[in-house]
Amino acid sequence: MSISNDMLNLAQEAKQAGRVMANLSSAVKNDLLLRMAADLEQSAPELIEANELDLAAARERGLAPAMIDRLVLNDDRIKAMADGLREVAALPDPVGEVTGMWRRPNGIQVGRMRIPLGVIGIIFESRPNVTADAAGLCLKSGNAVILRGGSEAIHSNSAIGNVLKQALTRMSLPAAALQVVATTDRSAVLELLKLEDEIDLIIPRGGEGLIRFVSENSRIPVIKHYKGVCHAFVDASADFEMAERICLNAKTQRPGVCNAMETLLIHKDVAETFVPRIVAAMRQAGVEIRGCEVTREFAPEVKAASEEDWHAEYLDLILAVKVVDNQSDATDHINRYGSLHTEIIITSDYAHAQRFLREINSSVVMVNASTRFSDGNQLGLGAEIGISTTKLHSFGPMGLEDLTTRKFIVLGDGQIRQ
Amino acid sequence: MSISNDMLNLAQEAKQAGRVMANLSSAVKNDLLLRMAADLEQSAPELIEANELDLAAARERGLAPAMIDRLVLNDDRIKAMADGLREVAALPDPVGEVTGMWRRPNGIQVGRMRIPLGVIGIIFESRPNVTADAAGLCLKSGNAVILRGGSEAIHSNSAIGNVLKQALTRMSLPAAALQVVATTDRSAVLELLKLEDEIDLIIPRGGEGLIRFVSENSRIPVIKHYKGVCHAFVDASADFEMAERICLNAKTQRPGVCNAMETLLIHKDVAETFVPRIVAAMRQAGVEIRGCEVTREFAPEVKAASEEDWHAEYLDLILAVKVVDNQSDATDHINRYGSLHTEIIITSDYAHAQRFLREINSSVVMVNASTRFSDGNQLGLGAEIGISTTKLHSFGPMGLEDLTTRKFIVLGDGQIRQ
Repeated sequence: MSISNDMLNLAQEAKQAGRVMANLSSAVKNDLLLRMAADLEQSAPELIEANELDLAAARERGLAPAMIDRLVLNDDRIKAMADGLREVAALPDPVGEVTGMWRRPNGIQVGRMRIPLGVIGIIFESRPNVTADAAGLCLKSGNAVILRGGSEAIHSNSAIGNVLKQALTRMSLPAAALQVVATTDRSAVLELLKLEDEIDLIIPRGGEGLIRFVSENSRIPVIKHYKGVCHAFVDASADFEMAERICLNAKTQRPGVCNAMETLLIHKDVAETFVPRIVAAMRQAGVEIRGCEVTREFAPEVKAASEEDWHAEYLDLILAVKVVDNQSDATDHINRYGSLHTEIIITSDYAHAQRFLREINSSVVMVNASTRFSDGNQLGLGAEIGISTTKLHSFGPMGLEDLTTRKFIVLGDGQIRQ
Repeated sequence: MSISNDMLNLAQEAKQAGRVMANLSSAVKNDLLLRMAADLEQSAPELIEANELDLAAARERGLAPAMIDRLVLNDDRIKAMADGLREVAALPDPVGEVTGMWRRPNGIQVGRMRIPLGVIGIIFESRPNVTADAAGLCLKSGNAVILRGGSEAIHSNSAIGNVLKQALTRMSLPAAALQVVATTDRSAVLELLKLEDEIDLIIPRGGEGLIRFVSENSRIPVIKHYKGVCHAFVDASADFEMAERICLNAKTQRPGVCNAMETLLIHKDVAETFVPRIVAAMRQAGVEIRGCEVTREFAPEVKAASEEDWHAEYLDLILAVKVVDNQSDATDHINRYGSLHTEIIITSDYAHAQRFLREINSSVVMVNASTRFSDGNQLGLGAEIGISTTKLHSFGPMGLEDLTTRKFIVLGDGQIRQ
């Protein structure tokens, strides 16, 4: 059979299975996730054995040690996957929620009820834990899921998938609700991306290359997360101690992630005092600064920033610093160079805070808090399936609710249209 | 200049203008719409003059009378456009709405605020009133809008667009917030569909051909509305008088629209009584019936339905009728042949009603009410920008809220991540 037929069959089976999953009670879904968690822990020896095959292949291909580390499954990481499933089991179920009903003049009652999307395709790279994490969120929200991980983790992903499917089978639920694409053939992805009648949403998780490849080739809606060029704006009214603490945290607490600060904007009225202070603090923390001309007036040791620096997602201990004339200039800079991910203001001025919240249309906008809170767990969504930096369907960190949609429900007692 | 450059410039200007529109108060936006309404009425002579050019060209090309009728602008239709704008002005503004905030253990407050999408592209056919209707909804929700109507209405659409832009200019708002693409060159659409950095959403309004063309060629998210194969299921417990009334209304009140009933499913326990009754009533109303074998047992004069009939969106006085063994069979039939648009059950059984509401995942699901209520106005959304039959972002009739998205807002007092 061809890859094209294989993928179509797999997706059609998932669609059928999704109809069953959509109508399960929360209790059954939670029970499923808890069984999956227990099964993963009990199957640790087999999972580690399968993982050895991937690790051996990776070493043979000379993969970088950091990449190999991401691939590793051990008892701790298997426990973390199981605990992740338990956390999702404990989250409220969005399916079936009706957020208010209203009555029309003719007496019909109208409301909107949350329902699963149907079939979700996850295309991801490297870390095998995504198999369990994504499966948990998709199944809890009443969807079927098709998982396609990277070829470097094919044995690990398949082994995890098989363990999770056992739990479905043992509960007499359709095993096809969870599909792990077990071929390393890249054309399998292209075939999946054509199946708009079977798959409702594609979520790519990985580098920008993967995300562009998926979104350019997909006929199915794709939730995209390109990059995080997060800005902090230190207003003239900022408390310097708070500004320093937040900026240091935003830049250095974990510099390699998308919600780390990459550019710092400073109001000119406080540049003379705050620029030397923050430059010194950042350098002490091992951060290289690239500054605009005004920044360099007040901190001559700083390297000059180029146009590229304003676009950069460093993901490293490097920070671009620019002094701006006022809040409008800060907003213009963010509009021009930002990635719609996360921006923060540090201010003690009520009107400036309100204006920042209103005018900055990034997916997460904060006052006096670190960019590092831009994360599904930190914001209180429970687990996170990804972050969207495009505005359709979901914008920002995505939790269970983002894997659902709403249908209208109407309760009548015989009404007809005049 | 090339079409490609023209479209890019136009979209970039729209994006800039959208940033201004996003931050207008509701009062200013409402004022804008009311001025536009008055301007349209005052400009009736010019609009009718421009419309004459389109009508002359249409007659020359031998367009069908029904198509020519859709094109006509007269005083009544201009007044209807103006009234439409006034109605949208009166609707609540979704922008800025924060639906609940919650506090995290570290004290940050988190909420989600509705914001405009940015730039919305509307690709439509024939009726020139879409120019005013779509502009009103997009501007009221704080977006910029790019309108591309059919070449047969180019003069009318441009004239309406010019009148509407005057109101923007007179209020010192950016005229680029409303763009009417004034070329009949079809490649303009293809160019627009590539501009994913400038345009946030494309809404095609027209026949299935237009919608497929747009969605196959777009790099921008598209809200699709393919067709409405709407079902009614008459349960064994249905009140026959109510069932007859609703079915007649659903089929005949306006058969040419997407929320008309196309297939009637009847529970076998009541087929002997209800089939002859509804067949007689439908025939009296001029409806041709195409039935399954069981239907034809009880109403021998009925034509046999073929497999095609179950898929058909007749948009005409034709109805497919099938007798089913039980509710599960009705659900299976709807899952197999439905278009996710609108389905209704007529029942007096509480559990069956609940089950139908839960199990049918079409965009509108009703109990004891006519399919014809599946419409933004009827459901209480105010005006309607379209109907989505795919699940991403919006599902079902779309109002102002569907032209927005939500960003996270976070209020802190110095919190950093541990």
